[in-house]
Amino acid sequence: MGRWEPNAKGRLEKAAMTLYLDRGFEQTTVADIAERAGLSERTFFRYFADKREVLFSGAATLQELMVSCVRDAPTSLAPFDIVTLALAQAGAAIGQGRERARLRQRVIDANDELKERELIKLATLAGAMTEELRARGVADTTSSLAAEAGITAFRIGFERWVRGSDDADLVQFIAESVAQLAAITHTMSTVSKEL
Amino acid sequence: MGRWEPNAKGRLEKAAMTLYLDRGFEQTTVADIAERAGLSERTFFRYFADKREVLFSGAATLQELMVSCVRDAPTSLAPFDIVTLALAQAGAAIGQGRERARLRQRVIDANDELKERELIKLATLAGAMTEELRARGVADTTSSLAAEAGITAFRIGFERWVRGSDDADLVQFIAESVAQLAAITHTMSTVSKEL
Repeated sequence: MGRWEPNAKGRLEKAAMTLYLDRGFEQTTVADIAERAGLSERTFFRYFADKREVLFSGAATLQELMVSCVRDAPTSLAPFDIVTLALAQAGAAIGQGRERARLRQRVIDANDELKERELIKLATLAGAMTEELRARGVADTTSSLAAEAGITAFRIGFERWVRGSDDADLVQFIAESVAQLAAITHTMSTVSKEL
Repeated sequence: MGRWEPNAKGRLEKAAMTLYLDRGFEQTTVADIAERAGLSERTFFRYFADKREVLFSGAATLQELMVSCVRDAPTSLAPFDIVTLALAQAGAAIGQGRERARLRQRVIDANDELKERELIKLATLAGAMTEELRARGVADTTSSLAAEAGITAFRIGFERWVRGSDDADLVQFIAESVAQLAAITHTMSTVSKEL
């Protein structure tokens, strides 16, 4: 299995990010990343399935966090409140590393395949929360709507945070986005009644 | 350019759908589709860029319809009302062909790549409506939230319609989904205030 390298995962992530930003994601190989990190390709594959996974390895943890938050939420809460809580917890967890999040976003923005992967990641998160709401006994459509609309608000809050210049908290951006979604849908006046 | 064939596009679509359902999308080639339709591959490529496009050729029309509906909506309407109207119009347009929509959905459900493509198509529709709302002078975040949450409601309404057994109208499913989204987000009571 090769010898143990201190902080190999972190070194690989840092090397990958630097190369993705310098040369572009497409132009970077696993060999380049390993070389820059001073490690072997074999060590790379001990941590990541491929070069794309370096950017998405946090998704599983995020999903676990959201799902366990939905599972453990007080029974008194309405479905959308449960989702809001889960999103806030996720925001608190990922909101620490803003500089890393910024760099990662730049890499993703520059590549259509990565943008699609990010979209799929978010859809998977919404799907996992939907399942967990249903497991709590929430109706199917309500579960989907609450989880998917919540993830939409999360993404828009996240994008404002990661692209913004001020130092506000990610949780704050998410809470604002959720509150705004509630306000916007509630202005719905005449149209839906006419349909 | 070869001779003109009556209803070539429709024949190719029908042949493709039959083959996708019988053999699976992966296992079907453009040559198979052309042969079954009694046409040449050259004719196929006059209508579709590849075999996937047969399933997604309606997206451009749908986008045009939604965007023009947002553009032409009365100025008195709130952003989410505008989006709701656009979704209802889109629903009225595609709600005619339920049997075709059902078959198409079966093909898509069976293939991960197609599911991802469908997701991207919907994200593109949301992006186009966002742009059009912004062009009307609606604030950036409001535009994104209204368009993206609207598309979420649209998709969930569409899925219930396409998978459901009763004969209700697609527009009705969409309107219900939108109204439910408004109701769900509005139950938001304590949580967002505490954040």
